[in-house]
Amino acid sequence: MKTRLFTPGPVEIPPRILRALSQVPPHHRTDAFRAALQRVSQALREVHQTEGQVLLLGASGTGAMEAAVVNLLAPGARALAVVGGKFGERWANLLEAYGVPHAVLPVEWGSAVDPEAVARHLDQDAGVTTVFATQSETSTGTLNDVEALAKVVRARDRRLVVDAVTGVGVHPLPQDAWGVDVVVCGSQKGLMIPPGIATVSLAPWALAAVEGEKLPRFYFDLRRALKTAPAGETPWTPPVSLVLALEEALTMILREEGLANVHARHRRLAHATRAGARSLGFELFSSSPSHAVTALLPPEGVRAADVIRRLREVHGMVVAGGQDQLKGRIFRIGHMGAYDLADIHAVLGALDEIVAHFGRPAGADPVRAASEAWAAA
Amino acid sequence: MKTRLFTPGPVEIPPRILRALSQVPPHHRTDAFRAALQRVSQALREVHQTEGQVLLLGASGTGAMEAAVVNLLAPGARALAVVGGKFGERWANLLEAYGVPHAVLPVEWGSAVDPEAVARHLDQDAGVTTVFATQSETSTGTLNDVEALAKVVRARDRRLVVDAVTGVGVHPLPQDAWGVDVVVCGSQKGLMIPPGIATVSLAPWALAAVEGEKLPRFYFDLRRALKTAPAGETPWTPPVSLVLALEEALTMILREEGLANVHARHRRLAHATRAGARSLGFELFSSSPSHAVTALLPPEGVRAADVIRRLREVHGMVVAGGQDQLKGRIFRIGHMGAYDLADIHAVLGALDEIVAHFGRPAGADPVRAASEAWAAA
Repeated sequence: MKTRLFTPGPVEIPPRILRALSQVPPHHRTDAFRAALQRVSQALREVHQTEGQVLLLGASGTGAMEAAVVNLLAPGARALAVVGGKFGERWANLLEAYGVPHAVLPVEWGSAVDPEAVARHLDQDAGVTTVFATQSETSTGTLNDVEALAKVVRARDRRLVVDAVTGVGVHPLPQDAWGVDVVVCGSQKGLMIPPGIATVSLAPWALAAVEGEKLPRFYFDLRRALKTAPAGETPWTPPVSLVLALEEALTMILREEGLANVHARHRRLAHATRAGARSLGFELFSSSPSHAVTALLPPEGVRAADVIRRLREVHGMVVAGGQDQLKGRIFRIGHMGAYDLADIHAVLGALDEIVAHFGRPAGADPVRAASEAWAAA
Repeated sequence: MKTRLFTPGPVEIPPRILRALSQVPPHHRTDAFRAALQRVSQALREVHQTEGQVLLLGASGTGAMEAAVVNLLAPGARALAVVGGKFGERWANLLEAYGVPHAVLPVEWGSAVDPEAVARHLDQDAGVTTVFATQSETSTGTLNDVEALAKVVRARDRRLVVDAVTGVGVHPLPQDAWGVDVVVCGSQKGLMIPPGIATVSLAPWALAAVEGEKLPRFYFDLRRALKTAPAGETPWTPPVSLVLALEEALTMILREEGLANVHARHRRLAHATRAGARSLGFELFSSSPSHAVTALLPPEGVRAADVIRRLREVHGMVVAGGQDQLKGRIFRIGHMGAYDLADIHAVLGALDEIVAHFGRPAGADPVRAASEAWAAA
């Protein structure tokens, strides 16, 4: 039995990316590597649709989130964290760890934040300089409307930082056009490579925001990264092999499939997954579902833990369970990165086999439902 | 022409490690990966010769240095940085970035620190809680006597943190026996894998030192890492592929060659390099040379930059130049990791070819000199 990852990151890695990973890496202080890093930076600018700078860090996505916090906030500056799941909570935890005075705007898990609620908060809380939000909340499979968020935040002259770790390469987020100051991302999601690289994308008007006295910073000091980036260097030794793998992934995304097609594919796959799962009696957990990951409530009488176990043991498929308050209630199917309709058919076939043990809904045809939704999306 | 790295990290990576890197990585929240991480942690404990815990971070060695600073020092606690090169300076820069009150003990570049000077400083500067030092100072190719340092620091009841980034897998550093509280390391040096993993090794008696109120920390918060480590997990998504590569490297070091043999091989290779280079008229820059990297002053009339260029252009060999005050004065040959006598013969053959243009010393036979030193060491 093959093992297939349907996890919300790390994701399946195409063999050609594994091959790029295993080449003899050049030393990082050579022209060959500098040129590669410059190509990767330029390609990342295209992915983020920004004329600013995308800085690479040797870290997980959480490292990029920390970099955003410590490089944007001066000591004592006030912040707002929009919290509708585990990754929204991470913003609040980061602010807490650094002693940043902050407010939390709670959002019901599984719902998108109402941009008007953010607007109202900002109007009442004049001290807030920076809003920290999430595009695709991985823990609940929920998409937030970053364009609308950016509009209300920018109109009030505050900064917006967006965690797009499971958004980049999945949902459009044209940074400059929407007016998002900072976007953070990780490598093991839509970018299809193993974990170990995180990125911070600074819009052109936000480049200067990292200057001056800020929270304590060293490894994640983006002033250093901005200074070395034009020469194709990083302040600290970068994860060279992963940079080479990332170049291959970006070639696939930008030069072969095309960014708009990648976004469209994810939209179609997400619709297919939802339609197929619903036809079997599963319900969507989120009222604003993300195209990166589908969070599902099992039908009456079926336990999420049993679905997860049987997917693994009988079908070789790894999905994720729920976290915290959602533990045992939901399971999450990731479909970001190198996934296609056949993969979705496969995971739906497995769910069909599992549901058959509990009584499949009469007439359910998840594969056909998926294909139809895929075609219509 | 082949490219050969003789850089002081990243180093040449054995093909079998590249192969380990390119396998389909398991998801990090699976039993297969947890078991691998537990094996790697146990093997790292053997490398560090500690009964404590070795924590893995997704970062470069600098990230591990930062982790040591922010997890050991309470706000306002005073520190001492021993600075005899670029990496000693990095400790001071880190302390500066976090606003830590600290003293610097300057050591002439190329000389080892005198442990008695540390003792005297500690006797006069009662507020110092923690000493930050370097085992192998990569910028100058200098070895410090960590055993003697630990003795004077422990006798005065202070903590010792050692940057052993180019020490681990090269020089012995039995952490518990010598009494070193914390040792930090990176993956792309003696551990022979690409950059992207850093480690912090806490001696058993230092495990509790990370608790309590410390400098601001989140991504590098070792309390979280200690909590998840026994289960084979990390607080944030780890660089999964690099962990698999590290397991292969540790198998080579511990189960095949044996740690003592690895140390002995580095000692012999370093002696061989020094003897061969000296026979050609090069001089050692350091009066206490490291076995990881040999820093050389070219003979009269030969420019370091010309040696570096010709090594690269004619011989395909990448070495490092000097940094800062040593820029243009020295070049550095790395021989840590998967290097053997044949590699040293090769780089000496190249130096011989280069020196021939400027007048080779009469009777110089660097290859034979190297072999003899290798046999005697």
